[in-house]
Amino acid sequence: MTDQTKGRLSRRGLLTTAGVGTLGAVAPAMAPGGSQAAPAAGMEDMVDLTRSYPFYGKGEQAGVRTPPQRHVLFMTFDLTTRQRADLQVLLARWSGAIAQMMRGETVGRVEPSQPNAVGFDTGEALNLGPASLTVTVGLGPNVFGETFGLSGHRPALMRPLRELPSDAFVPGLTGGDLSLQACADDPQVAYHAIRDLARIAKMTGFAETRWTVMGFGRASAGRGQSTPRNLLGFKDGTRNIKDDPDFEKFVWIKDGPAWQQRGTYQVVRKIQMQIENWDTDRVSDQNNVLGRHKVSGAPLTGKEEFDTPDFKQLGEDDKPLIPETAHIRLAAHENNGGLKILRRSYNYTDGINRYGFLDAGLLFIAYMNDPAHFETLQTKLGASDALNEYISHIGSAVFFVPPAPREGSYIGAALFA
Amino acid sequence: MTDQTKGRLSRRGLLTTAGVGTLGAVAPAMAPGGSQAAPAAGMEDMVDLTRSYPFYGKGEQAGVRTPPQRHVLFMTFDLTTRQRADLQVLLARWSGAIAQMMRGETVGRVEPSQPNAVGFDTGEALNLGPASLTVTVGLGPNVFGETFGLSGHRPALMRPLRELPSDAFVPGLTGGDLSLQACADDPQVAYHAIRDLARIAKMTGFAETRWTVMGFGRASAGRGQSTPRNLLGFKDGTRNIKDDPDFEKFVWIKDGPAWQQRGTYQVVRKIQMQIENWDTDRVSDQNNVLGRHKVSGAPLTGKEEFDTPDFKQLGEDDKPLIPETAHIRLAAHENNGGLKILRRSYNYTDGINRYGFLDAGLLFIAYMNDPAHFETLQTKLGASDALNEYISHIGSAVFFVPPAPREGSYIGAALFA
Repeated sequence: MTDQTKGRLSRRGLLTTAGVGTLGAVAPAMAPGGSQAAPAAGMEDMVDLTRSYPFYGKGEQAGVRTPPQRHVLFMTFDLTTRQRADLQVLLARWSGAIAQMMRGETVGRVEPSQPNAVGFDTGEALNLGPASLTVTVGLGPNVFGETFGLSGHRPALMRPLRELPSDAFVPGLTGGDLSLQACADDPQVAYHAIRDLARIAKMTGFAETRWTVMGFGRASAGRGQSTPRNLLGFKDGTRNIKDDPDFEKFVWIKDGPAWQQRGTYQVVRKIQMQIENWDTDRVSDQNNVLGRHKVSGAPLTGKEEFDTPDFKQLGEDDKPLIPETAHIRLAAHENNGGLKILRRSYNYTDGINRYGFLDAGLLFIAYMNDPAHFETLQTKLGASDALNEYISHIGSAVFFVPPAPREGSYIGAALFA
Repeated sequence: MTDQTKGRLSRRGLLTTAGVGTLGAVAPAMAPGGSQAAPAAGMEDMVDLTRSYPFYGKGEQAGVRTPPQRHVLFMTFDLTTRQRADLQVLLARWSGAIAQMMRGETVGRVEPSQPNAVGFDTGEALNLGPASLTVTVGLGPNVFGETFGLSGHRPALMRPLRELPSDAFVPGLTGGDLSLQACADDPQVAYHAIRDLARIAKMTGFAETRWTVMGFGRASAGRGQSTPRNLLGFKDGTRNIKDDPDFEKFVWIKDGPAWQQRGTYQVVRKIQMQIENWDTDRVSDQNNVLGRHKVSGAPLTGKEEFDTPDFKQLGEDDKPLIPETAHIRLAAHENNGGLKILRRSYNYTDGINRYGFLDAGLLFIAYMNDPAHFETLQTKLGASDALNEYISHIGSAVFFVPPAPREGSYIGAALFA
């Protein structure tokens, strides 16, 4: 293919000058037969599995603002101890292990020097490199209850989410006392991280697994990335938070005790999508459900993906071009008193359901400095979103994500001071 | 394949000119604290998502000898028609769609020009590039039964697998009339391929989904790749088939009607691994179960991964260093009349099981020119393998994989001539 040949040439150009240039989103060329061809190759098509991020730091944990990696393993845990010191030990052991794995190291030796010992690390990520691994630790509402005597440390806005109009929870897919979000550009690296942290939890006897989702794709966009698509086939994240002022205003916690500052709240929803039903819908209707054009991602009132939607513009029938029930209208900050949340979602599949339909959806993960922001948006979406015909919120949880620990410390250390 | 070799060479050329040296398998350096560090960056750490493979050709289908991509979506289907012409239509439509997707194109337009039409393609892989996609089509035993009047075309060695000592099948995870193995370096590209092919099956009304597994990692090794690890943490594929003579001798069918030549048999097993139990086992015992050292991959009688195992060598206790029940002893060609099969397996996870344990394992996919070869090996392994304490064969199927169609034709066209 000519496009690919060209792409290779331009990639050669980039690489021979050792430049790390980025190419923007490229409009798809038309191929014979009416199908749409791949864009020319660009640097964004190369995944560097040697990249690593630091776990320790002065500010926020990695995995929130970090450019979304290609894979996620999300898991929640129930605490099985009532002792504060046990929670402390678990968070300290997890922190040490996470720091090692984010550097691309094993958690201790795979083959211990003591010949009859059990391995410290399960070994399957040996030599795979850090692959941009981030593991983000969240503390659930119960951590700040009476059990551990930590209610005095409860972040001001921390509480379970209230009931929302779209809730359709499957037993076993809600809540948790602790959450781990492992993201990496290699799924084996992400899986290894969660497996070894679950193993540490089990070995201490202080926590057990609750629910988990493996996600793929890049269902959220950062600077310099073209916007990825969800399993509805639409770009997802065009208007996501990208710039410093919005992170400061909507994501990071800036008041309360020092140990909570640069923290954030993590809201997680497992959203099942009836993709086979969706696929039988006309694209013109799909566009009206979302309020955007499927291929370009442009709002129905615009030409380009990043055009600002005009929610007042009327069509020839005197109705708004972006319908009243369109997803982007209901979710837009313009229609919600300026509210924005940071979305960091991934596609998932659970295979085939009992009726033979493809079982898939979106692991929606969002970060915000007040969980009420999600409730505000979801109250509106859950009631009126045209998309509700095709989705079900089957899982849900909320966590407080403390800032990163300093080197030599661990997640949530201030709780135990 | 010559094309692939050329591709590698030219890519290597590009990168070395740019000053990015290539490193082979690198022994892990020791990091402080006894953990094991990632190797230095090398060629193998970069995934080129612009690479594509041809679907049409003179010889075998892609996805068998193709260097294993990082992801697989495997799905089987039941035929819901009894008309030979319907099967013909389905295979022809699938072939056309696969050829498009392997070029990185959509299956027809995402937004049809007819404003009220349903999209031909579901759209989520738009602009993701070919990502080395291969879709390999298999025909199950029933295709060659009386239903379609095709029994005269049945490949000589085609039949259901016989009962084997390790069988522990879960209802719904066996068999199928057709199989699709979609492999790609981007999971969204692999998922999209299976989804759109399942959609075509449903739209024709001729086939419905049966069972599916999504796999990750590179659980098999080709030339120039360091051997990937399975979820036991061990290298898997060290002695896999790599060279032309072995492919000719053990993989490709070379007799029978012309349309069967360069075909092969695909044996698929979903192998659940009790990884949490495994993780409580001492590494010295794990090494004895496999017959190799966990970190280096060397046989217990050797120093380096690719050292030939010495099954006769005795230890100080006068017992064989590689135990009688070690996996590699039972599976070795030296102990099975020279038999080899091509393995092309992937790791999978099904999350957490009902008891709270991590639910994971290996999607074992193997290719061979006689399914009896698998039965021979598995009869021995199923009866005596020390690994059986930790694994269960919960799914199984066998398919005939015809050669690639010529341009303008489709998979299995000779059946309908």
